[in-house]
Amino acid sequence: MTVSDRWLLPDGVEDILPPLAGQIESLRRDVMDTCQRWGYQLVIPPLIEYLESLFTGTGHDLELQTFKLTDQLTGRMMGVRADMTPQAARIDAHTLREDGVTRLCYAGHVLHTRPRHMLTGRTPIQAGCELFGSASESADLEVISLMLEALRVAGMPRIHLDLAHVAIYESLIGDAGFDRDTEDRIFDAMARKSVPELDELLGGCAADSAGGRLRELARISGGPEALTEARKVLQGAPDNLIRALDQLERVAAMLARDFPEVGYGFDFCELRGYNYHTGLVFAAYAPGHGDAVAKGGRYDAIGGDFGRARPATGFSLDIRALVSLGQRARKPVRAIWAPVSKDPALASAIASLRLTDTVIQALPDDETDPATRGCDRVLVQQGGQWVVEPIS
Amino acid sequence: MTVSDRWLLPDGVEDILPPLAGQIESLRRDVMDTCQRWGYQLVIPPLIEYLESLFTGTGHDLELQTFKLTDQLTGRMMGVRADMTPQAARIDAHTLREDGVTRLCYAGHVLHTRPRHMLTGRTPIQAGCELFGSASESADLEVISLMLEALRVAGMPRIHLDLAHVAIYESLIGDAGFDRDTEDRIFDAMARKSVPELDELLGGCAADSAGGRLRELARISGGPEALTEARKVLQGAPDNLIRALDQLERVAAMLARDFPEVGYGFDFCELRGYNYHTGLVFAAYAPGHGDAVAKGGRYDAIGGDFGRARPATGFSLDIRALVSLGQRARKPVRAIWAPVSKDPALASAIASLRLTDTVIQALPDDETDPATRGCDRVLVQQGGQWVVEPIS
Repeated sequence: MTVSDRWLLPDGVEDILPPLAGQIESLRRDVMDTCQRWGYQLVIPPLIEYLESLFTGTGHDLELQTFKLTDQLTGRMMGVRADMTPQAARIDAHTLREDGVTRLCYAGHVLHTRPRHMLTGRTPIQAGCELFGSASESADLEVISLMLEALRVAGMPRIHLDLAHVAIYESLIGDAGFDRDTEDRIFDAMARKSVPELDELLGGCAADSAGGRLRELARISGGPEALTEARKVLQGAPDNLIRALDQLERVAAMLARDFPEVGYGFDFCELRGYNYHTGLVFAAYAPGHGDAVAKGGRYDAIGGDFGRARPATGFSLDIRALVSLGQRARKPVRAIWAPVSKDPALASAIASLRLTDTVIQALPDDETDPATRGCDRVLVQQGGQWVVEPIS
Repeated sequence: MTVSDRWLLPDGVEDILPPLAGQIESLRRDVMDTCQRWGYQLVIPPLIEYLESLFTGTGHDLELQTFKLTDQLTGRMMGVRADMTPQAARIDAHTLREDGVTRLCYAGHVLHTRPRHMLTGRTPIQAGCELFGSASESADLEVISLMLEALRVAGMPRIHLDLAHVAIYESLIGDAGFDRDTEDRIFDAMARKSVPELDELLGGCAADSAGGRLRELARISGGPEALTEARKVLQGAPDNLIRALDQLERVAAMLARDFPEVGYGFDFCELRGYNYHTGLVFAAYAPGHGDAVAKGGRYDAIGGDFGRARPATGFSLDIRALVSLGQRARKPVRAIWAPVSKDPALASAIASLRLTDTVIQALPDDETDPATRGCDRVLVQQGGQWVVEPIS
């Protein structure tokens, strides 16, 4: 291996340099502070766990995304987390076990075996919030509102929010009574929104049967008019489906009041990337970026696997991607340059300036150009005093 | 696997819960801000790299500490970082390639195959600073001063700083001309400070030979009196050894001026945990904790392996351990409780309070006791207005 090979990073893995690293840190802090002002308490879940606890209640996708490691202490298999939401559910159900509603937030690196998207690569910085212990629509609304607020903090322009409800697909596919193989093929075609394949698979179903309704719903997505169309398709369908539509409509109306700048859309068979969700789900999109910039939804089942079934909903986003897409004001680095000197008076001048400002002190063998380090001022000695002067 | 097994975390791996997680986040921010006010720019090195770049220029210890993964995209072996210092050196030498002095800082999780210490477990949160491009003693001094400043920020009481110089051992063992096997046994005995073993291995060496000097130096450690004793042992030794002692003495004197509350000690054959160091090294200890709470030193060799030899020195510490050991003032959570209500006036009252304060809104199916969530105030409606009242 030659010197020039040695530093090559794996695909989808990157060094984050100044000033981008500082922008990421700044957004990470602002998003976490926003979550905390809404009452979400910070937790730090571990980077690795045994596979059994990482995958509990989650789908196969997550398993494929997870790097596996052998625990040298026990010989058991561990995984590096690919998603922090199941970890938060474990913490709520097992570690914290609080009475009442528990609100948690987190931010940290996750690892993916393959890049999910070019912009996020294999080491996204996941931040998110999870709300446990409330099955109410207000809880869904709070979590979506907080997500939109976080995107506002990130300076994301022209957000489009897609709302969907996992129960619609789950209920219809259950009622349709297909064999397992056909179900898998329908799921796959539905996830890829392949209307021709769905027509082939579901073509024989009557319009008012569960299969026929699935086929028709797959064609519908868009703004409020999509809701009207879906109501027609679901006319006479079981109550729980009508209730799901009602919920989508109410939640969108409430959100539109507080976030009028956001575009709202509906999708009745959205399945992509919802591994463990059970109810209302949502994804936020930004112009020119195919992948969701933030997403989440209700997942009432995971906690039970850890010994305590709790209603749950939450969202997560990738801080790294948001910094690239957002239009946040960027604070330029402004520093003061100090010369080489062992004068104790200079040392104390530097110490007091550093309480609020950045001071870079030159070193004896230093050939740095202060301007390349963001220095716009310099410490100079005038009449026995050290004073700050602009660099001319 | 039963439910009760499933949530067990591997040894040395933990969930960090509120309020500890918040204290860790707060210290992480304060340490990073301190580093940045000294001119250190934040970088975010990747969690995984190819093994070749992770281990370049480092010792065998780091290899044993590193979890290995297969890259599914290329079949090559990757590792999860066990130490971020070599990553910073790679960034300086290869990715950034700046002219002049480069100062970098970082903070993030690292993974160890085995716990290095009970308190840090296998997932420490490493934070550190690295200074590249200056071989001057002022650079060593700056890095140690910044480390002591960071420990001050962490509220660490009664710090003891051990100073050592890797060149002393390296130079003497080279001059002694032992075979490789004996050298390894001496290194091992020295690292464990086993005087009887060293007496056996080096017993036959004359007092003024390199081997005899090693044997005698191994017995010496302590305050300024240790320096005097070491000078006697090294009388007539090559100049570079005398210069190393002079440097230890000067650096300790300069530090004592700015950090008079710190205790200073010297150790002339310190090897433990210095994997890639080449010059002055240092470790800070706190009462009642056997492991160093922060450490670092000069390592002028790693950059060369990435195509650009640069003098380098730096330190790192474990934020998680510092929070347990330090005596920082802790800000208790203080929040405002808001009732269930769809009144738009309440929504706007909450939005304005959240600019500076924490507001938790009750949910319709919520049985939370607000006091258990840190609420000391509540929003109540008075004469058509929403006002904040203390909880009685």
